[in-house]
Order: sequence, then C-alpha cells, then structure tokens
Amino acid sequence: MRFTKGHGTENDFVIIADPDGELDLSASRVAFLCDRRGGIGADGVLRVVRTKAAEPGSVPGGGSDAEWFMDYRNADGSVAEMCGNGVRVFARYLVDSGLAGPGTFPVATRGGDKIVTLGAEGDVSVDMGAPVIFGSSSVDVAGGTYTGRKVSMGNPHLACRIGDPVAGLDLSVPPVFSAEDFPEGVNVELFEPVGDRHVTMRVYERGSGETRSCGTGAVATAVAAALLAGSDPLTEDSEWTVDVLGGTVVVVFAGGTSHLRGPATLVADGVLR
Amino acid sequence: MRFTKGHGTENDFVIIADPDGELDLSASRVAFLCDRRGGIGADGVLRVVRTKAAEPGSVPGGGSDAEWFMDYRNADGSVAEMCGNGVRVFARYLVDSGLAGPGTFPVATRGGDKIVTLGAEGDVSVDMGAPVIFGSSSVDVAGGTYTGRKVSMGNPHLACRIGDPVAGLDLSVPPVFSAEDFPEGVNVELFEPVGDRHVTMRVYERGSGETRSCGTGAVATAVAAALLAGSDPLTEDSEWTVDVLGGTVVVVFAGGTSHLRGPATLVADGVLR
Repeated sequence: MRFTKGHGTENDFVIIADPDGELDLSASRVAFLCDRRGGIGADGVLRVVRTKAAEPGSVPGGGSDAEWFMDYRNADGSVAEMCGNGVRVFARYLVDSGLAGPGTFPVATRGGDKIVTLGAEGDVSVDMGAPVIFGSSSVDVAGGTYTGRKVSMGNPHLACRIGDPVAGLDLSVPPVFSAEDFPEGVNVELFEPVGDRHVTMRVYERGSGETRSCGTGAVATAVAAALLAGSDPLTEDSEWTVDVLGGTVVVVFAGGTSHLRGPATLVADGVLR
Repeated sequence: MRFTKGHGTENDFVIIADPDGELDLSASRVAFLCDRRGGIGADGVLRVVRTKAAEPGSVPGGGSDAEWFMDYRNADGSVAEMCGNGVRVFARYLVDSGLAGPGTFPVATRGGDKIVTLGAEGDVSVDMGAPVIFGSSSVDVAGGTYTGRKVSMGNPHLACRIGDPVAGLDLSVPPVFSAEDFPEGVNVELFEPVGDRHVTMRVYERGSGETRSCGTGAVATAVAAALLAGSDPLTEDSEWTVDVLGGTVVVVFAGGTSHLRGPATLVADGVLR
C-alpha cells in the first residue's frame, strides 16, 4: 500500500490514493496507519476516491459534481464528516499528483461539497461556510474563568479573548463549561490580540485535548475577534491572521461566508512493508 | 532522502542508509525527521554507516571489526551512545536489506561493539553486557513509596516490585528519588509478577517520562525479579519474559552477561519530498 504523509499547520494525515474505490480500509487498518509508534502516525487518514466510485450514501443530497471525494477517518478508525485542515491537504495532494489542476474546484465530503482554491504551489484556501453566531458563555479553564462568544462552524466553539498571554497557559486539564449551553460539548479557544487583525490562539478540542491547530477553531476565533472590534463578519468583509501552535492561518470573511487559508505540506511518500 | 520507519516494542526509529558516510545529518535535520506532526516521527534516528566511513572518534578504543556503525541520534538531534531496541531494529534493517547475512555479528556503536543474533526473519537478540548490581533504594512515584534494586546497565535504574497491578498506575508525575543514590538521575521500573519468570513492567525514563518500552529497563527489571526469586543473574542462567506497554521482550542471563530478545519490525519505506 502506497501512502503520502502531509500536514496543515501540524494537523497531520496519511493520504491513500484509491481512485477506483477498491480498497477495503477497515477501522483497524486506519488505526494502524495513524499509530504514531507502531505504524506511520497521523491525526487521520484521507482516502482519495473518485466521487462516482465512493460508497453509496457517502455524499449527502444524493450526489455531487465534484470529481474527488475525501473519505476522512479519525485516528481511531471512525468516520468523520469534514476536517478544515484535512481538505486543504487533500487539495494540495490532488494538484501535486496531477489529479486536479490548480484553481478553484469542489471537493466532495460527507459534510457536503467544499470549495478549495490553490495554485501550483503555496497556500490552500477552503470555503468553510457561514459561521452561526450566538451569544456569550463562560468557561473555567487553565486556572481562570473566561467569557467568550459561542460560534457554530458545524461543530460548537467558545472563543474567548483573555487578558493574559496565551503562551503560558496550562491546557492539560479539560475545561469546565455550561452543559446547558453546550449539551454536546464544546471546543474552547483562548486568544489574545498581537497586532492589527492578528491574534494568537490556543485550542482545547473536545475528545482530543489541546491540539496544535484547529481549522474551525481558527474561524470561530476570528469571528469573536471581529465582533470585539465592532465588525460583523457576516456583513462586513475582513481578513484575520491567526497564529496557532502549529503555524499561522488566515481567515477571510467575504460575502457572508468564511475562508480558511494556510500552508498544506506534503512531507514524504512511502510504501508499507 | 530515502528512509525506513521501524520499531522494537514501539520504541520507533527513522533509519537512514548512508553506507559511505556522505550525509551531513544536522541536529535540525534529525529533529525534523523525528517530528511526529511536521516530519516523519520517531524516538530517534539510526544512520547506517560503514564503520570505516564513520567520523573519526565515533568508535571507542580506536577501531572495530564490525562492518556497520550505528550512528544513533536522539529526537532532539543530540548524539547518543547506544539504544537496546535501536540496535535490534538496526540489525533487522541490515539483514532485510542484504547488508548483512543472518546469524551473529557485531554492530559498532559509540558505546562499543554490540553482538546481535537474528535469523532471516523474526526476533532479534542483542548482548546487553553484564548488569552491575547494587543495593536497594526507595522512590516516591505513582502515589506510593516503593523500594527496589539499583542496577546499572551503563545507565542507572531502580527496579521495584510492587504489590499493586501496574496497569492502573498514574506515571504522569516524575518520580522523587534519592539524589545521593542517583546523582545523575534514574530510570524507574515498576513491575509485578504475572507468571513463572514472567513480569509486567511500566517504566519512567529520565528526560522522557513514561515510555512504551525501554531495553535496559527490561534487563534491570529481570535482574531485580531474579534476585527476589533467589537467583543471581551473574552466576545462574535464567530466562525472563517482560511485558511492556509496547509488547513483550525476553531477557536471558547466560554466562555472566544479559541478552535482550524481541521483535524488531520494519513498517514502511519512503522518500522525503
């Protein structure tokens, strides 16, 4: 089995090309591939399948015009709908492999078609859709109590601007949040402004703990930062730079939707023994 | 740059073939290779160099008859003398690549020549040398105070039989040990008997925290277990099975020395982009 290893701001993936959907990628096989010591090691697997060869029911709404379907699996082998950094790495793989040309095109996912934009090299941008903006909530985390903005990007977020530098925070202990506000749990972002429309963020992902990057979390953080600056991201276009532990991404609000732009790096190609 | 990824009981390595010693493997390059998210990911790098092509001074004592030198680097890029699981994986790579035939042969390391024994497939055994056995010491770890045996395998160990099952221990907090007994720190093993000459062990390595396997720690544990069973490993031959989180190894005491035997698995071959 051939594979490629890649990452977007250190959210990393094993990419398996399976254009004709011939591979029986079991949960245990995925778990092996993602095992960081006994296997290759990754946060998830991206299987590259032609949409017409994807299993029936994979693509919502009965079909897609996208040529390629991203079959995303979590490290434990379970199926997932979407991953903002994953789809950017997926698009970079398509273009670098000659499976798609540079430009703007849709990628089919279990969360619907995602529109990516990329050149022959460099950053990859993905349309993350319109954030859904709610009111505020509070969270006990990293030894403090912080209030922030509730944002849904398909998954729930609470993005809090804090007065302290985020670099020194201890995010080893799970946040304590309002179960009423977040019945299905929440991803918590803590951020501080470091420049003009430029913030630094740390993130605690539900089910994973602190991670080095979170695409939807970066957008939620930019939403909260924009609102604090008096700018409504749903009606006013703006661009935000978000530093995460694994690198830097840019969030662009334009025409009522959000775009996540950043590096997508292919590190190595290999063959399993 | 071509590489192979492999592991011994989940102590994992990136192996780089450089027979003629032409590669300038900088510390930052090693750190990149070992980066589990931005690179390939490993506990260390094994550079495969002909002994005659190794840098002057690499081999102690002015020379070695071993054909191959294991240039071992830690994940941070620093140079290390030896690694018991590393040299087993190194030997498996030599034989699988046709660089050495199956059987018994020496591998040159910064810690001197190490004698390995392996077949065309299967387990790899390495002569770990004679353990140096001292008295007892105590340690506060995992919420308890335990007394065990001080053993040197070139590096210092304290191996303690405990009354509780090791499976439930919390080894997230560094042990507190006697600075007088261990001025250079210590690797702490906690073990319980699970059968006839069969123990289960957990290990906290100085500088690393809990790890999934430790070759010298397995030998130190077998030393302590043998002594508790009334058998002197320096004078009485015996064989011990040691379960670690990453698998199972066998420690053999014979003729006053110790051998570590266990799986050495090559997972994948690749090329860096």
